[in-house]
Amino acid sequence: MLKGHQSWVFESKPFIKASAAVGGPFEAQGAMPEDFDTLHADIWLGQDSFEKAEKKLLEEACQKAIDKAGMKKEDIQFFLSGDLMNQIISSSFAARTLGVPYLGVFGACSSSMEGLALASMIVDSRFAKNALAAASSHNAAAEKQFRYPTEYGAQKPPTAQWTVTGAGAAVVASEGEEGPRVVAATIGRVIDMGISDPFNMGAAMAPAAVDTIEAHFRDLNIDPSHYDLIATGDLGAVGHRIAGDLLIEHGMKIPKEIFTDCGLLIYRQEQPIFAGGSGCGCSATVTYGHFMNRMRKGELRKILVVATGALMSPMSYQQKESIPCIAHAVAIEI
Amino acid sequence: MLKGHQSWVFESKPFIKASAAVGGPFEAQGAMPEDFDTLHADIWLGQDSFEKAEKKLLEEACQKAIDKAGMKKEDIQFFLSGDLMNQIISSSFAARTLGVPYLGVFGACSSSMEGLALASMIVDSRFAKNALAAASSHNAAAEKQFRYPTEYGAQKPPTAQWTVTGAGAAVVASEGEEGPRVVAATIGRVIDMGISDPFNMGAAMAPAAVDTIEAHFRDLNIDPSHYDLIATGDLGAVGHRIAGDLLIEHGMKIPKEIFTDCGLLIYRQEQPIFAGGSGCGCSATVTYGHFMNRMRKGELRKILVVATGALMSPMSYQQKESIPCIAHAVAIEI
Repeated sequence: MLKGHQSWVFESKPFIKASAAVGGPFEAQGAMPEDFDTLHADIWLGQDSFEKAEKKLLEEACQKAIDKAGMKKEDIQFFLSGDLMNQIISSSFAARTLGVPYLGVFGACSSSMEGLALASMIVDSRFAKNALAAASSHNAAAEKQFRYPTEYGAQKPPTAQWTVTGAGAAVVASEGEEGPRVVAATIGRVIDMGISDPFNMGAAMAPAAVDTIEAHFRDLNIDPSHYDLIATGDLGAVGHRIAGDLLIEHGMKIPKEIFTDCGLLIYRQEQPIFAGGSGCGCSATVTYGHFMNRMRKGELRKILVVATGALMSPMSYQQKESIPCIAHAVAIEI
Repeated sequence: MLKGHQSWVFESKPFIKASAAVGGPFEAQGAMPEDFDTLHADIWLGQDSFEKAEKKLLEEACQKAIDKAGMKKEDIQFFLSGDLMNQIISSSFAARTLGVPYLGVFGACSSSMEGLALASMIVDSRFAKNALAAASSHNAAAEKQFRYPTEYGAQKPPTAQWTVTGAGAAVVASEGEEGPRVVAATIGRVIDMGISDPFNMGAAMAPAAVDTIEAHFRDLNIDPSHYDLIATGDLGAVGHRIAGDLLIEHGMKIPKEIFTDCGLLIYRQEQPIFAGGSGCGCSATVTYGHFMNRMRKGELRKILVVATGALMSPMSYQQKESIPCIAHAVAIEI
C-alpha cells in the first residue's frame, strides 16, 4: 500500500529467497571478495568486447541467484533489470538468454533498487509469485561509453569514482523460509542542483539521496534509529560527506556508525579508486552479496539501501545540461 | 492479479482519466492530425538540439494530459516514462521538470505499454491513486543516434521505417467517471529470430508481437473476437504482414478488419515513410490520441495495444549481434 507521498509498504513482506553477486579482478582485490559468488580474473570474461563481458556478468549473477533459490530459469515469472549501457543492452540481452517476461528499468545506478522495489510490489500485490531483480555495470564498458577509452590513459580528478565491474541479482518470492524480506520502498524524485561535472557524480547525487531519505522517514513516520544500517548507493567519499552535512542541515542526524555508502565499502582504500566505487553493479553487488550475507549471519537485522543515480548521458553533458539525479530506497529486514 | 503465465488482470479497472498526444510537422501532414492536442510546425520546437526538442514534446504531452485530467503536476504521484535516447534522457529530464517520484522504463518502442502496464498495476494494487505514463521519440534525434545524421542524406531500403516525432501521455487513476479503463496487460518475453538488419525492424519485431498476442489469449482464455481492434505498435507494412502470416501458421486467425498497426495508421501513404511509422512516440501518440478519442466517441469499445520494441543499440549492431525484440500488450475497454 501507498504510505505518505512516495513510499510503498509491502504488507506481505516478500522474501529475498536467494541473491548472488559476480565481480571482476578489481573487485577480487577489494574489501569483500568473500561476498561474491564468482570473481573473474579476466576483465573480458573470455568475450571479445567489454559490453559482452558485462552481459555475461549479469547472466551469471541471475543464474547463480536462481540456482541458490533452488529454481530453474523457467520458474522465474518476471525479470526486472537495468544497467548503464545505451539502450540497457546488458539487461535486454540477458533477458534474451533467460527467456522469461522482461521489464527493462532505467535509473542509472539507482536501477538496482528501482528493480527491487518494483519486483517487490509485483510479488506483494500478487501479480507474481516470484520475480528476479538485477543490475550490472562494467568498468571498461562504462569508461568507454561515458568518458574515454581506458587506453587513452586520461587523468582523473580525486572526485572521480571507479565504476564497479559486477552484477547482482535477487529472487523475490511470496513464499520462503527464514531470510531477508523486503518491507518498504521509497521512490525518488529527480533532483538537480546544477552540478554538471561528470567527474563529481557523488556531489551531484547527494541531494537526491537526502531527498529520498527524508521522504522515507516522513512517509513511514520512523526515524534513523529504526535501522541497523543506512547505505547510500555510490556517493563515494565526496558525496557521502555532503549527504551527511545536508541531513544535519535539515535537522536529521544519522549516527556515523550506521550511515555508510556501498561505494565506500566495496574496495580497499589503497586501491586507486579516487572517491570510491560507482555504477549499477556497486549497490547491486554490495546489497545482494555483502549485506544479504551479513543479514543471514545475524549481523544486521534492518537495513535501508538508498541507491543513487545520475541520469545524464554524454550527449546531455555535451549540450551543457546539468546532471539530474535520483535515489530509490528499499528497506530490508530479517 | 496474475493470470496464466505472464498476464495481469486489473480487477479495479483503473481509469485513463485523460491522455494527450503532441507531434511534429510530419505528423501534422499525417493521417490523424485531429487526434493530436498540439502539432509543432518547427521540428526543433524552438530548441537548439533535437534532443532538447524531444524533451519538450514529452513535457508538453505530460502537462497536457495533467491539464485535461483537471489536475496539477503536484497531484501526480508517480511518473513512468521511457524513450529511445541513450540513458533515456528525454524521460529523465522531463521528470526533472515534473518534480514527482519517477520510475524510468526501457523497452525501446514497447516502452509506451510497459509504462502503462506498470502504472495500471501500481494504481490497481493501491500503491498509488494516480500515475502518469508517457513515452516519446523524435525523428531527427533517433536518426542521429541510431543511423546517420539526416544531413548526410543516406539512402534507405523500403523495409526501413520513419521514426515518429511525438510524445503521448496518460493519467491513470483509481477514480474516474466514464472513460477508457485498463483491464489487463501481458508482459512480453525477449524473442530473437536472428535478424540483424536495423533497416528491417518490423520483420525482427513481428515474432515478439505474435508471442505476446498468443500469450495474451492463452492466459486470459479469450479469443480475438473479444476485441474491436488489435493494434501492434510499429511493425509497419513488412512486419505486420509477417505477424499476420505467423499467427495463421500458429492457428490463430485475427480478422483483417480488426488487426492493424500504429505505424500503418499514423501517416498517409503518399508520405515518404518507407514501411511505416516507428519509435516510442508511434504507439504512444496513436494510443493516447487516436484510439482514446475513438473510444470516447463510442467507435471502439475494447482494444488491445501490442507495443513492439527492438532492444538493440548501435553498439550491439556493430558487434554483429542480432536484434532481441519484445512486445507488451495492454487491453483497454470503455
